[in-house]
Amino acid sequence: MTERTPAPVSRRALLTGGALTVGGALAGAAAVAAVRRDAAGPAPVSSTVDYGLQVVPFHGEHQAGIETPAQAHAAFVALTLGAGVDREALGRLMRLLTDDAARLTQGTAALADGQPELAAVPARLTVTFGFGPGLFDAAGLAAKRPESLQQLPPFGIDKLQPQWCGGDLLLQICADDPVTVAHAQRMLVKDARAFAAVRWVQRGFRRGRGMQDDGVTQRNILGQVDGTANPQPGTDVFAGAVWTDDGPQWLHGGTTLVLRRIRAELETWDAADTVGKEFAVGRRLSDGAPLTGRTEHDPLDLQAKNANGFPVISEFSHAARAHVLSDRQRIFRRPYNYDEAPAADGTADAGLIFAAYQRDIARQFLPIQRNLAEADLLNDWITPIGSAVFAVPPGCAAGGWIGQGLLG
Amino acid sequence: MTERTPAPVSRRALLTGGALTVGGALAGAAAVAAVRRDAAGPAPVSSTVDYGLQVVPFHGEHQAGIETPAQAHAAFVALTLGAGVDREALGRLMRLLTDDAARLTQGTAALADGQPELAAVPARLTVTFGFGPGLFDAAGLAAKRPESLQQLPPFGIDKLQPQWCGGDLLLQICADDPVTVAHAQRMLVKDARAFAAVRWVQRGFRRGRGMQDDGVTQRNILGQVDGTANPQPGTDVFAGAVWTDDGPQWLHGGTTLVLRRIRAELETWDAADTVGKEFAVGRRLSDGAPLTGRTEHDPLDLQAKNANGFPVISEFSHAARAHVLSDRQRIFRRPYNYDEAPAADGTADAGLIFAAYQRDIARQFLPIQRNLAEADLLNDWITPIGSAVFAVPPGCAAGGWIGQGLLG
Ligand code: HEM
Ligand code: HEM
Repeated sequence: MTERTPAPVSRRALLTGGALTVGGALAGAAAVAAVRRDAAGPAPVSSTVDYGLQVVPFHGEHQAGIETPAQAHAAFVALTLGAGVDREALGRLMRLLTDDAARLTQGTAALADGQPELAAVPARLTVTFGFGPGLFDAAGLAAKRPESLQQLPPFGIDKLQPQWCGGDLLLQICADDPVTVAHAQRMLVKDARAFAAVRWVQRGFRRGRGMQDDGVTQRNILGQVDGTANPQPGTDVFAGAVWTDDGPQWLHGGTTLVLRRIRAELETWDAADTVGKEFAVGRRLSDGAPLTGRTEHDPLDLQAKNANGFPVISEFSHAARAHVLSDRQRIFRRPYNYDEAPAADGTADAGLIFAAYQRDIARQFLPIQRNLAEADLLNDWITPIGSAVFAVPPGCAAGGWIGQGLLG
Repeated sequence: MTERTPAPVSRRALLTGGALTVGGALAGAAAVAAVRRDAAGPAPVSSTVDYGLQVVPFHGEHQAGIETPAQAHAAFVALTLGAGVDREALGRLMRLLTDDAARLTQGTAALADGQPELAAVPARLTVTFGFGPGLFDAAGLAAKRPESLQQLPPFGIDKLQPQWCGGDLLLQICADDPVTVAHAQRMLVKDARAFAAVRWVQRGFRRGRGMQDDGVTQRNILGQVDGTANPQPGTDVFAGAVWTDDGPQWLHGGTTLVLRRIRAELETWDAADTVGKEFAVGRRLSDGAPLTGRTEHDPLDLQAKNANGFPVISEFSHAARAHVLSDRQRIFRRPYNYDEAPAADGTADAGLIFAAYQRDIARQFLPIQRNLAEADLLNDWITPIGSAVFAVPPGCAAGGWIGQGLLG
């Protein structure tokens, strides 16, 4: 995913000036000083960077917000279509929302924007649209619904709450800035309200931009290094796993999204010891390396045995149960943390908004989810409480709109 | 407020290396390239900064988190003390929480930290403690309660909801990273649970770190430039307005906090035109300058008249009504935005977590709030729905604890 900064800005000149005063071999140190306030040193000339101005292109073969390195903040908004919203109305809705998204993501106010001033900080904003099963019925296009796009079967581990399930139309809004997300959400929800009701909103977060190196695999709210074994964006493996290339023609270049709200049982997880936590996942807490490896990206060795002849990585560990052998069967995980207000007694209400992308739900997500539901040591500490599925249309070119291949 | 980075880290070496390969006059440009992914240029060696490692000192004359430039994320957690929690128990609680805060803010895990790995990104974390009126009764110290520390009188504009009101002990947790806030909140709430119940939690946000220059006055969720006329941290004016210097001795060097949850009526605000919005505040939307001025920090000219002889800045505008003449009467505003899930019909549930610090509530906050409640054009679009007051003890030295002067 490429990104650009729209125009040179004065703060750059400032930052340049700051670095230049030092020059030569110290320039690197100056670059660091430019982003710190240091009690010891002189006040830096400029103490910021241009994260807010960074832009992810909206138009393209695929929708943005999937291959895009995950932004710090996300809002997943599920809408329920109003009675009588048919194919034609859906076309109008998607034209409108596409236009909003194309503008907002590029740092431009939406038409009829209530707070146009807030649009000036795009902060890598992406808006990704997904179509739930009900949308196909509303549009009279049930025949074009990908066969495996249907609510997931119930699993023994599920404790689903209706308020976090389903949805006809999904808006996935991601940006590095929380005000940007709030503003984009407001605009899109406003423009959708004549067509659809808000079913649920899930707000999630990851480490803020610039808090860690961009390339670092982040820790989730359970403290685990999470994302290591993901297909790498930009690779053929990623493309082969994520972008749909069979089934209904209109979805080629698109994908599917399974969104599970998964509560983390932090009360008992906090109480578990490191050995137990590592055994449950099959990876070390300290650096995410497999229990059989030395560094994070070493492959899992599921054959290795310990002195007693038992597998080092338990066959019931999360990593072992979730591991698949064929690249085409892999899923791409793009999870966000959630953390709602704790109960009066302090019990946390936190977990993952687990977003998984794959060409096909039945062939990729379901076998893994079945494996995990059947036996996964991590199940002691995680509970699915929400579930929804969406077909994510391909991207569009300027002048086009998302979903045109289906609804147009 | 000073900050430091605890230890040299490898990413710095990377960043240094990245800048050094360019050297000389181009060093500044390299520093910029280091924080962008650019479709045109080569992949940057390092694409981040060390915001995550920045630390705000915990110990000092005043508690951190007030004069500290506002971090991007905040959790305001109000606790209700359990029956039988007396002065001695409060002392134990505050020793425990002080120890947690002193560690976590410096990037070190708390004792018995369930996810010690998450503590490694302090991201300017501050934890600020406040004592509500009920704490004084519980401690048998009613005589030491500052006289004006009591729930605010009702105002005609209020639509208070009990779930956002009151509280015996406040934890104000702020950091530039949302995972850091969630982790610190979890640790503190866990350690407090034997003593107190969670009454309410309010999560708020501002622009992310590095999204705009640090010095820029941010826009709030209504799109207004908000904070311009604040006393400037680090100045005598700030100290004279904020740090308590009379009344009970134990509070000297401390302050008071009024926390109001104020809903923004975005439905009608969005519909208002620029002229109306600017008239209501007395300042321009585009840059926050007074309607009588040219740039943001020009003083308000409340005498200036337009061609028809009417004041340019209406006497009923928010800025005019909130303006006070004496520096000692000023308040320091450190607000956060909130944005909860909208209603099914799309109606926003957003506004400000309005945090105001002042030496004395009766002499500073109340006269301003009365002025505003009486007549303020902005009242058409804002509604107080929560209210709480806290005495904020002074800071402590290493080995001491917050509240020791009162409870010790
Ligand atoms: C709260 C819930 C979950 C947590 C905390 C969690 C955590 C983790 C962690 C720590 C890893 C190892 C590091 C990595 O490769 O990313 C991992 C791997 C993985 N997880 Fe999960 N996970 C959760 C739910 C799920 C679900 C619901 C699925 C799919 C149905 C899933 C599929 C996978 C896959 C495919 C891998 C990579 C396995 C491999 O090939 O090595 N996870 N997860
Ligand atoms: C949602 C509620 C509110 C909003 C949106 C809001 C917005 C603003 C804005 C845009 C300004 C002008 C820029 C600036 O100087 O910061 C301002 C100024 C100010 N506001 Fe508010 N405000 C709110 C509530 C309050 C409350 C409850 C108080 C105190 C009780 C207050 C006290 C002040 C003060 C003292 C000033 C500076 C006046 C001056 O001396 O120029 N505001 N506010």
